[in-house]
Amino acid sequence: MKRTSRDIRTANRYEVLRQIIAESPTSRQELAAATGLSLATVATLVGELLDLGMLTEVGFEDSAGGRPRGLVAVNASGGALIGVDIAETYVRVELFDLALNVLARADEDMRPGESRPVQVVGHVAAAVGSVVAQAGVEGARVLGVGVSVPGQVDRATGIAEYAPNWDWHDVPLLDLLSEHISYPLYLDNPLRACAVAELWFGAARGRGDAVVVNLGTGVGAGLALGGGLHRGVSNSAGEWGHTTLVLDGRLCHCGNHGCVETYVGAPGIMLNLRELSPRSPLLHPEDQTATIDALARGVAAQDPVAVKVVRDTARYLGAGIADLVNLLNPEVVVLSSWVAAALGEPLLEEVREAVARHALRRPLAATEIVLSPIPTDPVCLGAATFALEGALSSITQKAGQRNNRRTWSKQ
Amino acid sequence: MKRTSRDIRTANRYEVLRQIIAESPTSRQELAAATGLSLATVATLVGELLDLGMLTEVGFEDSAGGRPRGLVAVNASGGALIGVDIAETYVRVELFDLALNVLARADEDMRPGESRPVQVVGHVAAAVGSVVAQAGVEGARVLGVGVSVPGQVDRATGIAEYAPNWDWHDVPLLDLLSEHISYPLYLDNPLRACAVAELWFGAARGRGDAVVVNLGTGVGAGLALGGGLHRGVSNSAGEWGHTTLVLDGRLCHCGNHGCVETYVGAPGIMLNLRELSPRSPLLHPEDQTATIDALARGVAAQDPVAVKVVRDTARYLGAGIADLVNLLNPEVVVLSSWVAAALGEPLLEEVREAVARHALRRPLAATEIVLSPIPTDPVCLGAATFALEGALSSITQKAGQRNNRRTWSKQ
Repeated sequence: MKRTSRDIRTANRYEVLRQIIAESPTSRQELAAATGLSLATVATLVGELLDLGMLTEVGFEDSAGGRPRGLVAVNASGGALIGVDIAETYVRVELFDLALNVLARADEDMRPGESRPVQVVGHVAAAVGSVVAQAGVEGARVLGVGVSVPGQVDRATGIAEYAPNWDWHDVPLLDLLSEHISYPLYLDNPLRACAVAELWFGAARGRGDAVVVNLGTGVGAGLALGGGLHRGVSNSAGEWGHTTLVLDGRLCHCGNHGCVETYVGAPGIMLNLRELSPRSPLLHPEDQTATIDALARGVAAQDPVAVKVVRDTARYLGAGIADLVNLLNPEVVVLSSWVAAALGEPLLEEVREAVARHALRRPLAATEIVLSPIPTDPVCLGAATFALEGALSSITQKAGQRNNRRTWSKQ
Repeated sequence: MKRTSRDIRTANRYEVLRQIIAESPTSRQELAAATGLSLATVATLVGELLDLGMLTEVGFEDSAGGRPRGLVAVNASGGALIGVDIAETYVRVELFDLALNVLARADEDMRPGESRPVQVVGHVAAAVGSVVAQAGVEGARVLGVGVSVPGQVDRATGIAEYAPNWDWHDVPLLDLLSEHISYPLYLDNPLRACAVAELWFGAARGRGDAVVVNLGTGVGAGLALGGGLHRGVSNSAGEWGHTTLVLDGRLCHCGNHGCVETYVGAPGIMLNLRELSPRSPLLHPEDQTATIDALARGVAAQDPVAVKVVRDTARYLGAGIADLVNLLNPEVVVLSSWVAAALGEPLLEEVREAVARHALRRPLAATEIVLSPIPTDPVCLGAATFALEGALSSITQKAGQRNNRRTWSKQ
């Protein structure tokens, strides 16, 4: 597809800032070496980011024999970013500085039945107001708010097209939110939020191709290919949870049978447990989180039912991940989101064995499978990153101002 | 991953030549509009290709009120490219001019058992010699030979790592071929050859993301994402034939169970037929091509067994393609290779219905499913395209020669 000069400039801007956030302070020369861009291109991009106050000059380093090299670092207080994780049972909002440190957090619980769009929007607006107040940042410094909502979203129009767990259809979520929130808003979903978080700050950073397997209530696979997020032609790529693992298998809420999600999403894991041991004390029929936590504790205590359920789940997961390895030949597969975090290393080990049984030798040898190294909520971090990307995409150089101050374009 | 300035320049060179081959004559202004590149970049790239004799100036067109615009066209006789399709039962070699017209063809049959590397190399060398002689081109004008061999290949070293049908392991195929063939050689496999053929000359040209489903003895899915071939970290992406469609299903030669290939590759289709009607006269137990052709004729004559076998095959294929649609959200899915060509429209219609039953609404609505429009052997065409890409990648500008003649770098 056409990749315009503007697209390339934006991608280069991402690449340079990503590298600076990972390693500050740094010189333009180091950035050129790390990104493969020319020194002239790096100098231009660094100049733009300095003008916007996103970077700061922090002195010089000696270069053997040459002129001292100027060092730059991210200017953490040069702006604030907000990430919103709308999940099935809660809304979590975090406010970040430009180095992506969490400065404030607000959680709102949502009771079952409390899932009408207007109710969810109320929770989000309250939590966004709370984090801005807690952090004490001026509104003008908030560069944007990224919002993750489960299901299929139209990023361009801000519409939540389909959220299966709430039976939402074509909800104009950004329009509703913009009645309460005056910062630039960016809508996307958790699987892509987790992927972009890994791409900027986690296990996919600097890797060629990465697959971020998102294990929560829903299941997806964010695809970070060639250094960027693969979105597909209508921004719905990554619906791995709705690929067939067992032809004519379990009925899925999408209408298909045998979807990956019905075996390895939190409700699927509960079903794996129920089929093995219908009266297990590990089972909390109305509470996914409590059941997954009980399984994690059970595995730690070598409870045979818990061990078997995690092994069965890993067997399904391993077959599905082997498909991703064979199809995409990624450098790394990252297990992310709350189910992966809760079941942790024991799940990872069983998954590695199961993938090795199913995948072809050549792509298997090239692929590492890891748990997400991101210590905070990856969905909030990824959502905030969408806001950061949005801000970087909207940098414009006005005619006649080429060597003057850069400006943000209007949203 | 790092995309160096050199990578970008090579990709831009592909894009410009692709556009010129599709529409000649054309102006630099039209090329800039069609590719999204700046006029200055297009002018530089066109200059390089003119210097190399790959393009030719063909006059001027009026531009409303402005200076007349120079027109360029591909210089068909400016070089020759050779594509080699090593299949299970034959070797086919085609020689192309630079507009990718077939100038000569040679076929060599291989009997069962005649599949030792030295035998295959002998067939390829003979056929390459034959097409060069038939076309009467000077050796110096042959820019390269692309070679497609089934299975997993290491493109960088020229080693056929694993060809399941012949039980080849780590065969240094390019080294063996280079003892007989003095042109630059490029090794890859049929699924990627079919994908690159669609990307340059077929249904994927100018499309955002495309999946080229390769239906032959083996099965794969070449991924043309973001305007380029997605190869993966070790050049093995696309092994969709070895993704699981039926957990614990049919045993596959890869060692896994239930692989897509075991249901929709030519031997899988024969098994679909045998399971339905073990003594069907459509079945030619030792001859895949004859069986597939008999099925195609049977469907045309409304033979109920043939209709049912194609429907069953389409059901498997549709479930598998729906997985690709959900995961990758492509703009187009192309059915390619000889099984797709033989079963044609009846298969396509059944596949479209089956995909619609399985895929999610949003990506389904964005995806078109078509038969390959390429009228000749897509594997030979794709292999020749690898040689063309190789030639374009090796263009160098020597220091001090910026405005002088460009040269090919040494292979």
